[in-house]
Parts: sequence; structure tokens; C-alpha cells
Amino acid sequence: MNSENDPGSKYFDSETTDRERAIFEGAITLGALYHQFMGTPVRNEKALEGAIKESALAHPYIESAKVQVIKSEKKENTPYSYPELSENMLEITLVAEYRSARAEVELRYIRELEYPLMYIKQVQG
Amino acid sequence: MNSENDPGSKYFDSETTDRERAIFEGAITLGALYHQFMGTPVRNEKALEGAIKESALAHPYIESAKVQVIKSEKKENTPYSYPELSENMLEITLVAEYRSARAEVELRYIRELEYPLMYIKQVQG
Amino acid sequence: MNSENDPGSKYFDSETTDRERAIFEGAITLGALYHQFMGTPVRNEKALEGAIKESALAHPYIESAKVQVIKSEKKENTPYSYPELSENMLEITLVAEYRSARAEVELRYIRELEYPLMYIKQVQG
Amino acid sequence: MNSENDPGSKYFDSETTDRERAIFEGAITLGALYHQFMGTPVRNEKALEGAIKESALAHPYIESAKVQVIKSEKKENTPYSYPELSENMLEITLVAEYRSARAEVELRYIRELEYPLMYIKQVQG
Repeated sequence: MNSENDPGSKYFDSETTDRERAIFEGAITLGALYHQFMGTPVRNEKALEGAIKESALAHPYIESAKVQVIKSEKKENTPYSYPELSENMLEITLVAEYRSARAEVELRYIRELEYPLMYIKQVQG
Repeated sequence: MNSENDPGSKYFDSETTDRERAIFEGAITLGALYHQFMGTPVRNEKALEGAIKESALAHPYIESAKVQVIKSEKKENTPYSYPELSENMLEITLVAEYRSARAEVELRYIRELEYPLMYIKQVQG
Repeated sequence: MNSENDPGSKYFDSETTDRERAIFEGAITLGALYHQFMGTPVRNEKALEGAIKESALAHPYIESAKVQVIKSEKKENTPYSYPELSENMLEITLVAEYRSARAEVELRYIRELEYPLMYIKQVQG
Repeated sequence: MNSENDPGSKYFDSETTDRERAIFEGAITLGALYHQFMGTPVRNEKALEGAIKESALAHPYIESAKVQVIKSEKKENTPYSYPELSENMLEITLVAEYRSARAEVELRYIRELEYPLMYIKQVQG
């Protein structure tokens, strides 16, 4: 998406930098994806990854997306033994671009924090 | 899934019929899918349909699933013009089977009701 | 809600009984609530219970709702130590009524099944 | 929450400024809230506002939250005439603080864009 003609920019604090805007758009998308898909019953990791990736790319200024749904062990073979997408089963890397700036943001479950951390991996521009 | 050995059945009212149980399982799944996926940004209808279908089939006693995400018109070409899955964009038909019974349940937006109605299309057994 | 004049009934299999319809409506609502609210960050159990209960009562033919969000232990005092609503933290009991029939349905995490089971507790009529 | 001892900071690009981090945390929370609650059946706006606000304040580094669920007109008095939370019914203002920086971010439906825009209202520090 071309960010030269952004009809939304006039609503932003005029001191917002392109770096900050790229970070902002990447962060919205990470938060959105996590909370949209958490709890989804999982039978086919690839199909769910594909839908999450396409949803990511629909968001404004997201240029690329990598998504991994981590396979969870089935404990027993009962009708109730399927996994639901949970905090330690989802990894996402997004690149958001706004004019000259590029932010790479990531979601990953960090065992040390016992938390699905979203963080800024790298910003350029 | 084999419903002969259902470790969950003892929690149900013992007068529950197989027909009622099949209806119950189909209805849970319709409610679950609708509220799990409503609001998802849509870029690729097929990818989203695939994920919803696979999620449906993970649910207990769901034997088959048909899912259609209805294409929404893009109004303009701005970064903000993508559709989000909304009440009149999703159609689902599920078959739930429990022992000898089979319930076909459906979600479809009914223009007359201005409502995404979930209904029992047919029950057998 | 009065179920005598139901503009949706004509979409249902004409052999659907009132009992089956009450079960159907209760089940939709359990599935909907679970997947709408799973993953919600929890700071105030009572506020979340209230919102889930009101959402339940908005659904067609739901006459009463009891909701419990079970307090989860905070492990440490870091910004990342809040709980998100997960499968073993939510208990719901609903009564759905359709004409002469009344279905009491429930969601409860069953330790034996390692599963948040939805079941029909009692049907009358 | 004290941001002096942030066990997550080492995962961030070391050039991330406090301003950028405050923006990042505010944006995650806006994206999360929107996609968590979109589609919720609404009967009591105040109860839903309360739950969304408490969920906002659970997120790391969110210092204050204002939430408004805009009342939607009921068209008719049928069991199917309740509203579901949709893109033009939710307004959120959040303040995120990280060390010396403070970002005020907002979600509001912008009629001109036909879009629920999330934007940076003001950044300080």
C-alpha cells in the first residue's frame, strides 16, 4: 500500500515520526491477530496459519507476515482431545512500512517470562 | 469420531436423546465459529473459509462442514478499505452425528429478519 | 422474550420440537460466549462476569444466566503476569426457554476430561 | 506498573526509544480490545464498557482507559433485534506510559474514511 497519500494521517499527532507510525501499525496488527484467533480449535495448523497471515496482510501498512501455529500434543483419542490455540502456540513476525520507515515486530512465547511477548525486533528509517 | 464411548455423556441429563445431543453439538459449533471469527480482516476469502472449516471439524461430533465467506465490495483503494467479516458475510452448514442421530444445522443471513439466523435444517434418527 | 410469535421458526425443520429448540438456543449461546471471551486479559473478574452475563441475556430465548470467572493466581508482580481468560477459568449456567420447553445448559471445566465441557443439565417440557 | 525493571526490554531493538515503546504498548492494546470484543451481543452498554476498560488496564503499561459503547437503535421488538458490537459502536482512549514517555492513543469510527481508525493523539517525552 502506498503511504504517500494517507487519508488517515491528519488524525495523528503532527509530530508522529514515520518510525513511530510504522511501529504503531505493526503493534495494532499483533494485538489484533492474537486476540482474534486465541481459542480457535485447531485441527490443521497450516490452514489456520494461512488465514492468520492473510488477515495480517489486510491490515494497513503491513508488508509481510510470517505465521507459525505450533503443533500441540494430543493426549488421548477422545472427541474432547483437540487443542485450542493458546498463548504458547502462536509465533508471528510482521513487517510494517510507512513512507521511509520499516518496523519488524514479533510475537513469541517467552518461557522465562511465561508470557506471549510482543516486541520490536528492528526499526529502520 | 466414535460416539459409542463418550466419556462426557455422564454429565448430560440422562433423558437426553441422541437427536437432542446431535442438535446440541451442532449448535455449539455454529455459535463458536460465528463469534470466534466475526471481525476478522478479510483479504482472501478462500483462506478464511479453509480455517473456519477446519476449526468446525475439530469440534466434537461434527462430521462435515461447508463454509462460505461472501465477498464484500471494496469501496475505494485506500489502506482502510478492506472488509472485516460481518454478520451478512458468512454462511455455514454443519452435520453433527451422535450415535444414530444426525442434525444438519445452518447459519445464514436472513434479509427479512436482518439477522444472521442459526437454524436446524434437518434432523434424522 | 415471547416465543409465541417467532419470525425465525419457519426456517427450522418443521419436526423440531420445543425441547430441541430450547436446547439449540442454549447451545448456541454457550459456544458463542466461550469463543467471544476466551483470551480476554483479566483484571477484574466481576466486571468480566457482568459483561458475559449481559451478552448471554441478549441472545434469543435465554431467560437467565449465571457466570463465574475463576480467579487465577498471579505468579509474580511483573507487567506481564496478568491472566487471560482460559478454558479452566469460566463457568456458565444458562436457562433457555422456547414455548413450553426449558433447557438448562452448562459450561464447566472437567478435570477428568481436561476439557471445558458444555452439557445439557436438565430439560423440561 | 513500574517500567524501571522491565524483564521484557532485552527482547526489543536496543535503539527503541521510550516514546516508541509507549506507542507500541498503546497500539497493541487498541488492536487487542477491538478484535476481542467485536461481535459481542449488546444488551447493557455500561457492563460491556466496564469489562473492556478493565481488560485494557490489565495490559502492560496502560495507565488509563476511557471506553464508550455507542447505543444502537433497536429496529423492532423481535428476539433477533439486539445489536452486536460493530465497527461504528466503539470509542476508546488509552494512555500508555513507559519510563519518561506517555502516549495517548485512540480508536474512533471516522465517517469520512468509513473506518474505525486507530491513531496517535498525542505523545510526550
